[in-house]
Amino acid sequence: MRLERDKVFDHIKKHYDEHLGRLQEFVRQPSISAENRGIRECADLIKRYLTELGCKDSRLVETSGYPVVYGTYEAGADKTIIIYLMYDTQPVDEPGWAVPPLEGRVVNLDPFGKCLVARGAINTKGELRAFLNACESIRAVGEEIPVNLVFVAEGEEELGSRHLPEFIGQYLRELKRADAVFFPSADQNQKGKVIMSLGVKGIVYFELELDGKGWCYGPTQFDIHGSNKAWVDSPTWRMIQALSTMTEEDGNKVLIEGFYENVVPPSPEDVELLDKLEKTFDEEASKDMMKVERFIDDVRGKEALLKYLYSPSLNIDGIWSGYIGPGTKTVLPYKITAKVDVRLVPNMTVEEVLPKIRRHLDRHGFKEIRIVELEEGYGWAKTSIKEPAAQAIVKTYMEFGYDPEIWPHIAGSAPFCMFNRETLNLPFVSGGIGHGGRAHAPNEYIVVGEVGLTGGLATLEKSYVAILDNLSKM
Amino acid sequence: MRLERDKVFDHIKKHYDEHLGRLQEFVRQPSISAENRGIRECADLIKRYLTELGCKDSRLVETSGYPVVYGTYEAGADKTIIIYLMYDTQPVDEPGWAVPPLEGRVVNLDPFGKCLVARGAINTKGELRAFLNACESIRAVGEEIPVNLVFVAEGEEELGSRHLPEFIGQYLRELKRADAVFFPSADQNQKGKVIMSLGVKGIVYFELELDGKGWCYGPTQFDIHGSNKAWVDSPTWRMIQALSTMTEEDGNKVLIEGFYENVVPPSPEDVELLDKLEKTFDEEASKDMMKVERFIDDVRGKEALLKYLYSPSLNIDGIWSGYIGPGTKTVLPYKITAKVDVRLVPNMTVEEVLPKIRRHLDRHGFKEIRIVELEEGYGWAKTSIKEPAAQAIVKTYMEFGYDPEIWPHIAGSAPFCMFNRETLNLPFVSGGIGHGGRAHAPNEYIVVGEVGLTGGLATLEKSYVAILDNLSKM
Repeated sequence: MRLERDKVFDHIKKHYDEHLGRLQEFVRQPSISAENRGIRECADLIKRYLTELGCKDSRLVETSGYPVVYGTYEAGADKTIIIYLMYDTQPVDEPGWAVPPLEGRVVNLDPFGKCLVARGAINTKGELRAFLNACESIRAVGEEIPVNLVFVAEGEEELGSRHLPEFIGQYLRELKRADAVFFPSADQNQKGKVIMSLGVKGIVYFELELDGKGWCYGPTQFDIHGSNKAWVDSPTWRMIQALSTMTEEDGNKVLIEGFYENVVPPSPEDVELLDKLEKTFDEEASKDMMKVERFIDDVRGKEALLKYLYSPSLNIDGIWSGYIGPGTKTVLPYKITAKVDVRLVPNMTVEEVLPKIRRHLDRHGFKEIRIVELEEGYGWAKTSIKEPAAQAIVKTYMEFGYDPEIWPHIAGSAPFCMFNRETLNLPFVSGGIGHGGRAHAPNEYIVVGEVGLTGGLATLEKSYVAILDNLSKM
Repeated sequence: MRLERDKVFDHIKKHYDEHLGRLQEFVRQPSISAENRGIRECADLIKRYLTELGCKDSRLVETSGYPVVYGTYEAGADKTIIIYLMYDTQPVDEPGWAVPPLEGRVVNLDPFGKCLVARGAINTKGELRAFLNACESIRAVGEEIPVNLVFVAEGEEELGSRHLPEFIGQYLRELKRADAVFFPSADQNQKGKVIMSLGVKGIVYFELELDGKGWCYGPTQFDIHGSNKAWVDSPTWRMIQALSTMTEEDGNKVLIEGFYENVVPPSPEDVELLDKLEKTFDEEASKDMMKVERFIDDVRGKEALLKYLYSPSLNIDGIWSGYIGPGTKTVLPYKITAKVDVRLVPNMTVEEVLPKIRRHLDRHGFKEIRIVELEEGYGWAKTSIKEPAAQAIVKTYMEFGYDPEIWPHIAGSAPFCMFNRETLNLPFVSGGIGHGGRAHAPNEYIVVGEVGLTGGLATLEKSYVAILDNLSKM
């Protein structure tokens, strides 16, 4: 069964306006998981999309949280690919949007030209709908999709995929038939370079909390007049003392007992990938994007990459206590909260983190500090570049004229391990030729017109067609 | 010249409704210094009040900030008393007001009965207008005020009295003629006990701030994705490390070099006052009001009083960095700010504080942390109980049947030292028989009807008349 790509590509080109309309329609359906806004309506919409594509069993699978949309497309093919999708987005309440975030406006964004600017445009409603457009285009020209598809669209990615394991447990048999998992993405950077990542770090996210009530010292119910510090303990100072025991003076090396004990050095395969990556890694562009002048300890080049990819991190995402307005107000705060995340590298486990933090606090005499689990967290995930699924992605990029910059993994986190190392043990790959940005920020965008090396909507859809084709031949 | 108190008291009783009306009128004039709302109108109103009373030279004295209202009432008396007043209030934007905060409503507040509930009711517009009512009542019955009065009403007390020294410098000669300074207050606690304080601690208030820009490490302009902690420094962790060097593990003993070097033990007079105070000090009521279960190191009784009154304190009023909303958002914050106040006890000086903090940070390698001065601060102030002015206040309380609980000073701060130890070296006293509460909070109130031991508006005005009378005889 040989897929006539040209026919499909021609169809995609001809139906560009209509396909763009489907993206606009989809981003107009809110699906803000943090606010439970439009979640079920969006799930229903995807179920309809899957039915339209030809999935005969598409359905909403209930979990303790939001439903997972499930559906299979049986192509009678040899290979079966799980298509992992997320249908939830971040909220839209941050200031700075130049267009209404839920209207699906297409505007010119310098230097990218025509862009769809909307919440979810790149994270990841744009890719989701573009992938479905690609699949529909194959069928529209009388061809068959070259692999069987098992769709899994979750609505809690932005909340830490808390209930995805429930679904996976329930559908284990259906999922086990798959040969690989594919997550449609748009992986060009702002200069048009294709970045391919073979994995993610894991994450555990929690809060450390202390108030006078839990401590039996300090104010227990509200902030009191600041002059009372002379005779009343301060939960704020106490928390600062506790936190300070967790790192060295530079705030980098973690002093929690056993924090690094399971960290392994890069595998021989990773070392090989790093040797290549070092040559194309644009350090200055990375720094400029973050507005960072120097990395930790002034490391550069490969040393920086090693730090970035192979160090676990203990990060304070936020901390607050007392009066945080302008000017002066003297209070002794009754409570302090710190939001903390730990990033896991091989071979750290989710399960080891909180017990180690607890033991550290207890050993240092800070039994009163509470750990509040915010999400269950998930482990790191890695797919070997030698996996046929990964090679299918690389091959696609080469066919389109791109030499991808391959990262053994990224420092960010995603719930890929639920399909990968945990339970299913499937290779997990993502890819697609396109570009977008400002995820989790105002004016989130995906490029829809073609510009220079940067793929627009048509190229993105064509790349998905090619990826499916190449996955069928692995 | 003997003041016929009974005639005045009778007048006060008869004109209760009218006097209450003046308080209501006064609190209806906003004077929120933090927002520059109604400040000049309020100053003009007080100028008019002083003119009505008979001050021939009442005027607004300009400073670099808000004007000071100045005026002298020449009674041809032997003694001259500076009447220190503040005409500004806190803002009214906090939630929880049961009545509009600027309408001057009189409502029943359990267990106090009739109360004026308004911003400024007790801090300190109620007392200011009640004092003027008292003075006017003396004149209304054909008597003469028994002392000359020099009115000094500032509009920046809630901002740290930043520009009061400018005024004092300009009017040094006029102020130097005075024998004492009196601040009209309402000093009964919620149980009707009269609390008399002979001084205040000093205060220095500042912010400690760190961002990547000032440090050359870490993100310099905005929060970046939390996964970058692996290779990018965290200003948040760094600040926590810096702060942690400033106290012992319990957050109490201050480790800043020389912090305690100028602290002196209680004077023999203070020791004597403490011996008495210990017997009436209601420790449980104090703890209950603050909702505090235990004091630092579980101290009780006199030991608690010693800690409260004679320890300088280093307090974190507020601290914030990064994402402080609900749920999870992973960011590496580019900036952290801590609001800090230091309370000064004898013989510490305002001038010694920030240089010591700076030296401490530098010595510990935290040169990058900025100290942002928020207000100039002011020193501690104390008046001896043996001062005739203090004895005049005690005598007044005794005449009204109250045995005051005398505190050598309180742990709070007020700009009394500007009249007291600095420049003028005048005894500074405050007093008045009345009760109010919830200063800086919603539903601020002053009791206006009489209830049990608690003085209402008439008693408060009578006590001011008696204080002036007793001050004239010192």
